[in-house]
Formats: sequence, structure tokens, C-alpha cells
Amino acid sequence: MTTEAQSTELTHFDQTGQAHMVDVAGKQDTHRIAVASGTIRMLPATLAIIMQGNAKKGDVLGIARIAAIMAAKRTSDLIPLCHPLPLTRVSIDFNIVAEKAMIICTAQVETLGKTGVEIEALTAVQIGLLTIYDMCKAVDRGMVMSDIRVLEKHGGKSGDWTSLIDASSGQA
Amino acid sequence: MTTEAQSTELTHFDQTGQAHMVDVAGKQDTHRIAVASGTIRMLPATLAIIMQGNAKKGDVLGIARIAAIMAAKRTSDLIPLCHPLPLTRVSIDFNIVAEKAMIICTAQVETLGKTGVEIEALTAVQIGLLTIYDMCKAVDRGMVMSDIRVLEKHGGKSGDWTSLIDASSGQA
Amino acid sequence: MTTEAQSTELTHFDQTGQAHMVDVAGKQDTHRIAVASGTIRMLPATLAIIMQGNAKKGDVLGIARIAAIMAAKRTSDLIPLCHPLPLTRVSIDFNIVAEKAMIICTAQVETLGKTGVEIEALTAVQIGLLTIYDMCKAVDRGMVMSDIRVLEKHGGKSGDWTSLIDASSGQA
Amino acid sequence: MTTEAQSTELTHFDQTGQAHMVDVAGKQDTHRIAVASGTIRMLPATLAIIMQGNAKKGDVLGIARIAAIMAAKRTSDLIPLCHPLPLTRVSIDFNIVAEKAMIICTAQVETLGKTGVEIEALTAVQIGLLTIYDMCKAVDRGMVMSDIRVLEKHGGKSGDWTSLIDASSGQA
Amino acid sequence: MTTEAQSTELTHFDQTGQAHMVDVAGKQDTHRIAVASGTIRMLPATLAIIMQGNAKKGDVLGIARIAAIMAAKRTSDLIPLCHPLPLTRVSIDFNIVAEKAMIICTAQVETLGKTGVEIEALTAVQIGLLTIYDMCKAVDRGMVMSDIRVLEKHGGKSGDWTSLIDASSGQA
Amino acid sequence: MTTEAQSTELTHFDQTGQAHMVDVAGKQDTHRIAVASGTIRMLPATLAIIMQGNAKKGDVLGIARIAAIMAAKRTSDLIPLCHPLPLTRVSIDFNIVAEKAMIICTAQVETLGKTGVEIEALTAVQIGLLTIYDMCKAVDRGMVMSDIRVLEKHGGKSGDWTSLIDASSGQA
Repeated sequence: MTTEAQSTELTHFDQTGQAHMVDVAGKQDTHRIAVASGTIRMLPATLAIIMQGNAKKGDVLGIARIAAIMAAKRTSDLIPLCHPLPLTRVSIDFNIVAEKAMIICTAQVETLGKTGVEIEALTAVQIGLLTIYDMCKAVDRGMVMSDIRVLEKHGGKSGDWTSLIDASSGQA
Repeated sequence: MTTEAQSTELTHFDQTGQAHMVDVAGKQDTHRIAVASGTIRMLPATLAIIMQGNAKKGDVLGIARIAAIMAAKRTSDLIPLCHPLPLTRVSIDFNIVAEKAMIICTAQVETLGKTGVEIEALTAVQIGLLTIYDMCKAVDRGMVMSDIRVLEKHGGKSGDWTSLIDASSGQA
Repeated sequence: MTTEAQSTELTHFDQTGQAHMVDVAGKQDTHRIAVASGTIRMLPATLAIIMQGNAKKGDVLGIARIAAIMAAKRTSDLIPLCHPLPLTRVSIDFNIVAEKAMIICTAQVETLGKTGVEIEALTAVQIGLLTIYDMCKAVDRGMVMSDIRVLEKHGGKSGDWTSLIDASSGQA
Repeated sequence: MTTEAQSTELTHFDQTGQAHMVDVAGKQDTHRIAVASGTIRMLPATLAIIMQGNAKKGDVLGIARIAAIMAAKRTSDLIPLCHPLPLTRVSIDFNIVAEKAMIICTAQVETLGKTGVEIEALTAVQIGLLTIYDMCKAVDRGMVMSDIRVLEKHGGKSGDWTSLIDASSGQA
Repeated sequence: MTTEAQSTELTHFDQTGQAHMVDVAGKQDTHRIAVASGTIRMLPATLAIIMQGNAKKGDVLGIARIAAIMAAKRTSDLIPLCHPLPLTRVSIDFNIVAEKAMIICTAQVETLGKTGVEIEALTAVQIGLLTIYDMCKAVDRGMVMSDIRVLEKHGGKSGDWTSLIDASSGQA
Repeated sequence: MTTEAQSTELTHFDQTGQAHMVDVAGKQDTHRIAVASGTIRMLPATLAIIMQGNAKKGDVLGIARIAAIMAAKRTSDLIPLCHPLPLTRVSIDFNIVAEKAMIICTAQVETLGKTGVEIEALTAVQIGLLTIYDMCKAVDRGMVMSDIRVLEKHGGKSGDWTSLIDASSGQA
């Protein structure tokens, strides 16, 4: 899936194998952007209810968007070795793929900081999708969340990176 | 995916379409159990590093397990309309499927309470998988999290429910 | 404002005047309900923007409702001597009083527990109103939040209590 | 109430009307100050108890001050689209207006950052007042919180802004 | 230090050595009490400042008490395998031992629940002492916190337990 | 214990004796480092279980390390007047002193910021030790945490400071 050369060491462990929050004091504050996405598949009838709701009663996606944005801000509370970062932007999109009874959630997160924001973008996607699950579980317990991944990142020493996958399809 | 009869209304909205945290005061405190799972796929080389780590240096899965347990306890902070619940048990398993370069995370969450704990189990799975991503992203940015779903639930008025999917395969 | 006989001692202090979280172990678990409300006044033009948004673009009140519900769940993190409580219901209403360029937020919070939920209802009202302020401050910095109070409470040893004030007017 | 020219658009929504946490990466880090205030009215007997407490037993205002400071730090957890900011100063004053049986809470919050701190100052005022309510509710359930507003802001592109209202009176 | 028979197994691990939050669903809800204490030693001049402050300006111990109470409520957020519990009482005492330039913090925490509250009491003591450190560090960086331990516990299947140590001396 | 000249005023109070979060806007962003340590003493049999666990089943210290790192990030939520800081590094060591049946926890915390990180390092030590207590309390309720102190600090206007105590002994 990834073709470029990357490190072969897990930086979150020191030489003795103990976990630490890695030293980023020497890194530059650069403008960093990450885009992540993921999908939730459901029964067609469930998607129909969400789409109605969007128009008139019960705005599932509006609520999921707020949950996703708020979750991005909580990332360093949830992920043990993640650095706290003052996010400068969070935006969330939901795209409905009616013929697959699927919704794609895409999150773009940005900061001016010393570490990337991929984890923040993935957290936003996960909690955005899970909020959809929560709000619809009374009608469809079998919904499945998949293909949660980073699509792009920009900024920092490693520069730009783009997934080789066509995200718009929601599939690898 | 789901075959049983369920409600066709989103309970998280009132008659006028406004979101609310639904009234559960009249529900029984019963022993409730939910099991959820999900997968993370990666490069074979990444999985090899994790498996080494497990044995000796850098216990990725041990850390992901702790993150998953702690996240289950934070669910009602993250999911807007989710009721706070005093969890009575959280247990997390990771199964390595070497031939697919994949790890399956399974979470079992329990409570004695008025609402189910599916969302808590899904939160645990998501954050467990995301912690693996975070700890390995320096070597493999293209990891993908998929097939996050509820496998079983027990307790409450709706009783037992089991997904029709063979979870051990990590695929629908 | 209050006419009934109440205690003349602050229960949150012990005999030596030190703050404590009071002992409620001996209290009954009863069904407790609190209703609180408050207002935000603004420029007529600001209210017009919110009302448009409600219909089509930018759902200020929908977002404020979610913030209010989530804040109710965080009350014991914010108020030092407040007992943590598993809320069983939170519902939030916004009423627009166009001729006064004012929105009234009303919160109803319920639990089965040993202490009342007035503080949870007031927290929901405050954060609901403040979220409106936050979302509209770019167009109207002079908005004012007022008349935040408890309207009713039910349950517990002290039983029912109703404010003497006509809440629908948003004024004492 | 506001006389200066301001935007007529809600910046918290994008062109399609969806909420987002707005991009502030391009904004300058400037020294930003916000002052907010609000009042709580009560029975004269309640105020008398608080004033005693201040001197000797049960320091209601000392506890409310701590709650207000801590709440300012939690603002971005509570307000959905609020950016997290490293606050550089929080100070809280309580002024007793005995003849009106009223306490005025004033909060000054500062940062060196890309966005203003009005919301942080308002959060501090709200939680400061609510903590007074919580600690005195056993003797006076009818207390009312009002006139919560921003008095001044400094820093950022929009520069200085001062409310036209005489805050010392606690009334518009 | 402990003389009674106790388990020789760490219950927080399952048979395969993996951490879990242990199943307490089968345990009784009983009234549980834990008392913990600890000390902070400082320069005599530092203690003198704190004692003044208590009387008139700068109530270090009043603030430390609030921090301790609030921390007890956050215990399950901090300690990975700790069950969330609805605390029914928290009380904090500070005793000054002037001749040793030492303050003893004692916390009593209670619940009606399925697990003990020793960890909650220890958290309260730790954060109470640390708040004293924080507030006095500008005058005395060398303060030392010691002898943090459980003094008593009551309730639950294991019943009453009392430390063999004379806590009032602040020493083993 | 401290010999250098320090302030004789508690900076966390203003001239009238009221607590505030002090103004640090004028301070330089410098690279700040703090090292803190503390001990937990236990029964020799308890230490033996921990040492086994480390090797094979039940990694007590691995879990305590994660709890310590996560707690460092929560410091400003717990300590009332502590400034929020974006930590750039957290590392935790545990040293076993078998002949004393004691474990020493040492935390090093770093930031580029306007205030020191001693409190963050002490929080990490406290919660690291307390997590050991929590995980072993089923076999040893009498464990005692002691000698929690700052060992070194670097950066900021006051520059370097080192405790006069031999930390490796775990005793003053």
C-alpha cells in the first residue's frame, strides 16, 4: 500500500524498548495538514432515514460533524503518546453514496506545529462515523465502518504524502 | 446485513426532529454485554515489527490495549447523545492474522445499566486500532482500519443479538 | 424571589467551615427532574441570520443543542462540589422571541439518583447560550445572556418546587 | 447595543452552510485580552451568609474563583467550534452589590494567540456564577444569573472593542 | 507492612497476562469508605507563608482542598484499569505539623458501589499535596511529598482493613 | 533543603490575596526541562510479582508508564492555577531497588514555553506510582509512596536548578 521509503523503527520506543512521548522540541513549527477518510455501510432503509433527516427532521450528519470536530480536539487525551497540538482548522465532509448505502466521512485537520495531524484527522473520522452509528443503531445494528485511512499529509520534514488509493470510491 | 425486525425511527430525535438524550429512566438495570471488533491492515514488515515488539522491545499491543480500555470509559464524553454508564468490565483482545498482515481487535464491554454498551465497545475498538496506527505510522503511513462493527449484544429489552458475519475472518 | 422555607446553612461546608462534597449515601435514589432556562438577547439582524440558518444554511441552534446536552454530562467536572450522576434524560428547547430579538433556552434534565439535577440543567442552559454567542460573535459582539434560573424541580426529599416567575417571558 | 461595523456572515459555517472550525493558520499571534462579566441576584439573607463565609467559615467566592479559572481552561472542550488556546493569564473578581443582593463576577483572560479569548472569559464568568448557585442552592433556589456579556476585547485584527454598557451597575 | 492474608494474584491481568478492567458485575453494591493520607515537607519559612495565607491573604489550603475533591472525581480518567464510580462523599483535611514544617493531607472518600475507593482517596491526597507544591514553588522548589498511603478501608467482601501505622505522625 | 535565593511571595495570589492564573505573556518561550522522581515501597513478595510480570505476564510497569505519560498531558486540568502547555517530550523510567522492595519512578518532561514543567513531571510521577498501587492492591494494600520531588529543572529566567539530594537512593 505504501511504496515510499520510510523509517523502519518505531519512534515511540526508546533504545530499551520503553514507550515515550518523543522529543519534538527541535522540530520546526510548520503548517501541517492531514486529510483522512472512512466509510459506514448500512441498510438502504437506514440511509433513506438519514437523508430525510438531513432535509427536515433529525439532522444525523450535522450532529456527527460536531462530534467529529470536538473529537479532533480531544485526540491527545485518547491516544497515549500523541503530542497535544493547538489545531488551527478542522473541517468535516460527509458524502452519501446512495447506490452502496454508504456514507463517506472526510476530515481535514490543520495546525502550525511540530508534529503532524494525521491522528487528529483519523480520530475525527472515527468519531464522526461512530456518531452516525449511535444515532441509527435503533434501526440498524449491523452497520459497518471501514476503510479508515489517511489520504494526504502536508508539512513537516517528510513533506507531502498522498495515498495511492482512490478515496472517492471508499475502497482500496 | 441485519435481518431481524427493528424500529424504523431514530430514537435520538423527538417528534419535532430535535436531538435529545433519550429518557431511559423507565428502563430496567440489566446485565448488558456488547462485543465489537475491527481490523487494521498494514505492510507485512510493519506487522513483523509489532510481533517482535510484543516479545521484547516496544509493546505496541499492550499500549493499544490500555488506550482502548481508557477510551471505553470516555465514550459519553465523545458521542453526543450517549448516556454515561458505570462500566463493570472491559476486556480487549488482539489477534494477529499474519498471512493477511492484519490485526483484529475485539472488545467486550459490560455494565449493569439501563442502556446497552455497543457504543462503548466500538469506541474501544476504534481507539485501540488507532493507537496501533499512531505507534507504527513512522514506518507505515498507509495502514487501513476496517470492518468495525458490533458482533454481539446481550441484555436489555431487545435481548440477544448476534451479527451474521464471521468475525474471525475480519471480513463481511 | 423564593418564598418557601429552606435551610439557612450552606451544606457544602462542614462545621469548621471547610468545603466538602457532602455525604449523600443515605439519600434515596428517586426520579429527579430539573428544568432551567435562560435567554440571549441580540441585534435583530443577528436573530434574522440565525433564523435563516435554521431553515437552510448554518444550523446555529442545532449545534447549540448538542453543546448543551454534552455540557450537562460534564457538570461534575466543572462544578467543584457537584456529585457525579448518571443522567437518564437531557432535552433542550430553543424558543425565538422575535419581537425582543431574543432566544430562550430551556433544559430539562433527569436522573434516578441521590441528588438533584438543577446544576446540570443550568450548565446545559449556559453552554447552549454561550455556543450561540460563539457562533454569532463575528456579527454581534454585544449579545447578552440573562435570566438563567431554575424553573422547576421534582423528586428527592424536598419534593416539587416551582419558580414563581413566568418563564415564557424570559423575565422576572 | 453594538455600533461598529462587523461582518454579516457567520464565519463558523462554510459556503454550503456546514459547520467547521475556521482556519486561523494565517492569523497573527498577538496579545489578546478579553474582559467579561455577569451577575447573580439572590435573597439578602443568602448574600449575608456568603459575606460571613468570606470572612470566616465557608469561602464561597474563593471556591467559585477556582472553578471559574479552571473552566476557562476547559472552554474548547465545551464549545464545539472554539479553538484550543494556551491561556497566559486568568483573573477573576467578585464585587458585592449589597443593596441589590447581587454579586458581579468579572473575568479577564489573556493569551498570545491567533484567536480572541472572549468565549474563555464568558465561560469563566458562567461557571463562577454557577458555582455560587451550587453552593448556596440549599438556602436559596431562586437565584438568577444575568447580564453575562463581553465588556472589552483587545488584540487581533479587529483591535479594541468596548461595550457601551456601564458594567459596574450590572445592568444594561 | 501488611499482615493479613491477601490474594497473591494481580487481578488486573487475565490468565494470559493481558490487562483488563476486571468484571465487577457480580459484586454487591455496598457502602464503601477509604481513608488515605500523605505529607508535604517544606522550609519553615514556606509553612509560615501558608499559615498566614490561611488567615488572610492567599488561601493555599482552601484551593488545594478543592483540587483534591475535583481530582477524586477524575480518578477513572487517570488510572487505566480503575472502574468509574459515582462518589457519594469526599472530604479533605489538612493538618499542620509546625515543628516538622510539614502538612498532612487526609482524604475520606465514600461510595455505594461495587468496588472500593482507595484509589480515589489516594488521587485526592496526591493532587491536594501537589497543588500546595504548585502554589508555593516560587518560594520553595525543594518540597517533598511522602508517606502517601491508605489508612483504612471499609465495605465490600474483604470488609474492614486498617493500616498498622500511626498516621498522625506522618511517618511509618 | 533549598539553599538558593528564591522569592518570598506566592505568585499565585494578587495583592489582595486572591488566587489567579499569573500573567506569563511577557515571558520568553524557552526550552524547559524538569525531572522529578518518587518511590513506592511494598512487600518483597509484591515486587517479585511485578518483576515476573515484566518478563512475561502482566506488565505492571508498562501500564504505569502509559498512565504517567497521559497524566502529564492532563496536568492543567487537575492543578487549578497551572498554565496549559504543549509538551514536547515525556519520558518515564522505573528503577527497581530489590533490596528495599522499592520502585523508583523518574519522569522527564520538556516543553518550549513560557512556564516550567515541574508540575507536569510531578503529576507523571504520582500517577505512575499510583497505577502501580492500583494494579497490585489486591495483593498488598500497605504500599507507600514517598519522596516525590523535583530533581532538576532547566530553562526559563531562573535557569538551572538541581536538588541537593541523591535521588538514586530514593531518600532524602
